[in-house]
Amino acid sequence: MRILLTNDDGVHARGIQALIGELGSIAEIFVAAPDRERSGTGHSITVFEPIKVVKAKLAGVKASWVIGGTPVDCVKLASSKLVGDKIDLVVSGINHGPNLGTDVLYSGTVSAAVEGVIMGSPSIAISLNSFAADMDFSFAANFTRKVIQILFKNGMEKKTLLNINIPALCPKEIKGIRITRLGVRNYENLFEERRDPRGNTYFWMGGGVLEEPQEEDSDVNAVQQSYISITPIHFDLTDYRLVEQYRKSFSQFSHLLGEANDIL
Amino acid sequence: MRILLTNDDGVHARGIQALIGELGSIAEIFVAAPDRERSGTGHSITVFEPIKVVKAKLAGVKASWVIGGTPVDCVKLASSKLVGDKIDLVVSGINHGPNLGTDVLYSGTVSAAVEGVIMGSPSIAISLNSFAADMDFSFAANFTRKVIQILFKNGMEKKTLLNINIPALCPKEIKGIRITRLGVRNYENLFEERRDPRGNTYFWMGGGVLEEPQEEDSDVNAVQQSYISITPIHFDLTDYRLVEQYRKSFSQFSHLLGEANDIL
Repeated sequence: MRILLTNDDGVHARGIQALIGELGSIAEIFVAAPDRERSGTGHSITVFEPIKVVKAKLAGVKASWVIGGTPVDCVKLASSKLVGDKIDLVVSGINHGPNLGTDVLYSGTVSAAVEGVIMGSPSIAISLNSFAADMDFSFAANFTRKVIQILFKNGMEKKTLLNINIPALCPKEIKGIRITRLGVRNYENLFEERRDPRGNTYFWMGGGVLEEPQEEDSDVNAVQQSYISITPIHFDLTDYRLVEQYRKSFSQFSHLLGEANDIL
Repeated sequence: MRILLTNDDGVHARGIQALIGELGSIAEIFVAAPDRERSGTGHSITVFEPIKVVKAKLAGVKASWVIGGTPVDCVKLASSKLVGDKIDLVVSGINHGPNLGTDVLYSGTVSAAVEGVIMGSPSIAISLNSFAADMDFSFAANFTRKVIQILFKNGMEKKTLLNINIPALCPKEIKGIRITRLGVRNYENLFEERRDPRGNTYFWMGGGVLEEPQEEDSDVNAVQQSYISITPIHFDLTDYRLVEQYRKSFSQFSHLLGEANDIL
């Protein structure tokens, strides 16, 4: 089995190191990760600049590359150019901080896993719910290995795409696993306005998570209640429920278009 | 009515100018757009750098700002800090080039519209299927105005989110409108490998669209067949169809977790 590891915290982050140590026993490990932290890059790709690629020297891996691009660039490059053989699984993480609810849209970690499936490999994103510098990633890495074993035992589908969040607790305090849906994450005081020494305005994005009522089966709720959340993800943004409704409303009002354009 | 315009081609792009001219007759126009082209930035946000904001001097608008950030930054900032009042509609575009199928994940234009809905305003992304420098945006802008009038006539829902693509044809050659689903867009020869003068490797992302069989009701198909495509979009990435399936498989194999962790 060939596993590609990536992340959005950069190739030297502790989360990816923990995964190399844990997954090396069950697979050949390839690493293609950004040269520096790329949090918040979402599904960003580098189209107008060249992407530098340097071979890394990480212990315990088959091959590794430091990529001057986004997490999605890393997965695209590794899948189509660098690894050479078919990648059986992409694992993105372990992210240093949660990726819950609506926030997954902004997440480089989750977007890298989405890109894995686009490039043809089942993929997992894994995040630890803590920004503490001294966080221990070993339980999360160990849990990832077991999830992979379960998935392969069960026959992993090509379109497998899981977003896993682990509470920042010692293992004995974790109550179990919940298969969840994405919850809601909004922020208060999103921007702080400042002035530079020349009097120009600039803003820092920041703000705190707004405490909001959550669906009982949401990932946000599960992690708050000391459960590991596992959310199956897809990336078809079509809102099928509304296709028929818009067909009706555009037919009904087509004369508004027709007045100015004979062809419509 | 207050309309916020944004794009990923930069504040001075011709697409946004065409929208100002056309929509000024039906609404107060605010513009918050990036200082330069930001194509391919997806749902990227700027979290680790300050975001510069400068007042722009565009004719025919109530207020306008040049933002040193991504399209999503623009919508977040305008909605929470700059405009002040409630924004009734976000229009992102007119993009110089298509945003079809899977490509919407990478699109700054579509992501800005998604962010509009996250921030509480109905939103439209609009793209013209041509990269030609001398492209005429006037039909696309005029069509956008009519779509907005239909939507308001019909009672626009807060969660309205439409992705519109217009074929690059003269109006008489356009066959009509189709309400569509997102199709498939894959690329061949995605990366070109080069060496810099010092012998270091770098890659350019490029490649051509792979011609693939499309669902009859897809946006890719509609535009190829000279129809305007309108796709309703959502952003809940939960794959609800698989929640039950994963509940079963993780229950079935829970002993694999339990062996090493009493708590699971």
